[in-house]
Amino acid sequence: MPPGSLRYPPFAPGEVWLVGAGPGDPGLLTLHALHALEQADVVLHDALVPADILALAHGRLESVGKRAGRVSTPQLKINARLIALARAGHRVVRLKGGDPFVFGRGGEEALALAAEGIAFRVIPGVSAGIGGAGAAGVPLTHRGVGRSVAFVTGQHGPGDEPDWAALACGADTIVLYMGRLRMGDIAAALIAGGRSPDEPVLFLADATTSAEQIAATTLAHSGVAAANLPANAAVLAVIGAVTELRGLVGASLLSGPALPAPALSVREA
Amino acid sequence: MPPGSLRYPPFAPGEVWLVGAGPGDPGLLTLHALHALEQADVVLHDALVPADILALAHGRLESVGKRAGRVSTPQLKINARLIALARAGHRVVRLKGGDPFVFGRGGEEALALAAEGIAFRVIPGVSAGIGGAGAAGVPLTHRGVGRSVAFVTGQHGPGDEPDWAALACGADTIVLYMGRLRMGDIAAALIAGGRSPDEPVLFLADATTSAEQIAATTLAHSGVAAANLPANAAVLAVIGAVTELRGLVGASLLSGPALPAPALSVREA
Repeated sequence: MPPGSLRYPPFAPGEVWLVGAGPGDPGLLTLHALHALEQADVVLHDALVPADILALAHGRLESVGKRAGRVSTPQLKINARLIALARAGHRVVRLKGGDPFVFGRGGEEALALAAEGIAFRVIPGVSAGIGGAGAAGVPLTHRGVGRSVAFVTGQHGPGDEPDWAALACGADTIVLYMGRLRMGDIAAALIAGGRSPDEPVLFLADATTSAEQIAATTLAHSGVAAANLPANAAVLAVIGAVTELRGLVGASLLSGPALPAPALSVREA
Repeated sequence: MPPGSLRYPPFAPGEVWLVGAGPGDPGLLTLHALHALEQADVVLHDALVPADILALAHGRLESVGKRAGRVSTPQLKINARLIALARAGHRVVRLKGGDPFVFGRGGEEALALAAEGIAFRVIPGVSAGIGGAGAAGVPLTHRGVGRSVAFVTGQHGPGDEPDWAALACGADTIVLYMGRLRMGDIAAALIAGGRSPDEPVLFLADATTSAEQIAATTLAHSGVAAANLPANAAVLAVIGAVTELRGLVGASLLSGPALPAPALSVREA
């Protein structure tokens, strides 16, 4: 590989690429993800993918939006649509916020495609919890403060509820995805499992975007605090002592894409 | 923001950017990371960052290699070097494998920089566990199979050992970073904590690179299997039933950058 250049796999007609869009900032797309968006004939995307990422796609956009508490396209219909588009010979990107295989149901789509013999590729992305916390100055692990981190979602299928008490003692830092609507119940379950009511919680709403809102609270107050966050935002909760490190680095931390700035784009070399 | 172009924050002299290099494949760098490598005067990098990623840097490279079982630069010396370079007016990238704030000790560097009043930015990356597993076809979460995932490292400071028994019951999927040398002991502790000896384990050595090796085993046999992996490789262990989904999608999964392919590079627009 020559220095200063990058090589990408070819995107063949009839293939489906399951692509992570990262936490929100277009600059946190991977090079593979940008390449995929520029090559795809059709992009099936979740509702939470920001418009300035969708604007990077050259092909047709189809929303299969999923959003807490709203009507969304059922997973089986999404699977069927991916299969139909691939069979029609399109180069198909399935674009998901964060990473496609971390609470993205990408595994279900992969199984559906494999069952039909359709070739697919996975383009991992910066998971929203990692990217959101990091850009906000919160290390999810830190020697002496947080030795392990667990990721869990607040939305579950029937009978698929996590064991919150076991999770409470299982990891030092807990990152809760899509937990806003049930935050009070989940916090109570974590406290019942042994976490302190005074444990710090940091909410990240629409992390790494220009609409980002950050709110610090405690586990005991997190249900009330969650209700005050913007109703349509993608909300992450980071639970644990590592969130307090943010206060120590705050003044020196640069964040957000400071405009104006040099405009770059990816081009064929 | 105009469609098809991206804006980046300016990289001012005297700033330090803590940058995630992703799991290994240069295509899994973020756009911000590539921009940082192209702008930096000096890049301080870990030993595990692949040469074809380092080749993308335009400035001077300094290795502050850390590698299991070998002599490496102590963290305090790395902190001091970052501070000295920033004070000398350089634009400094601290490049780490995966994400800088997930087992990367980036939090310690952030605190050291903040204590000296040096401006820094965090560029999150695709964590090796997420990117390695995803590209290999393993969804770290999957409805009905894995509802939660915990990340933990096999290397610890004195008195900073995780509670393996609590972790064993705390999350469905466990991703172990840098655990090769202690895999037998850690597996025994997880089994003592309630995990089945027959639970599947997938080792990913040098994930997403051309040297990648993947080995499937069980928790009971994982100590022996780890000893057979390449001694110098970066090794991840994914523990849990989700690893078996790989067998179901294997035949349809495209992986690795298939060469030859169009060469792309990021240019000023």
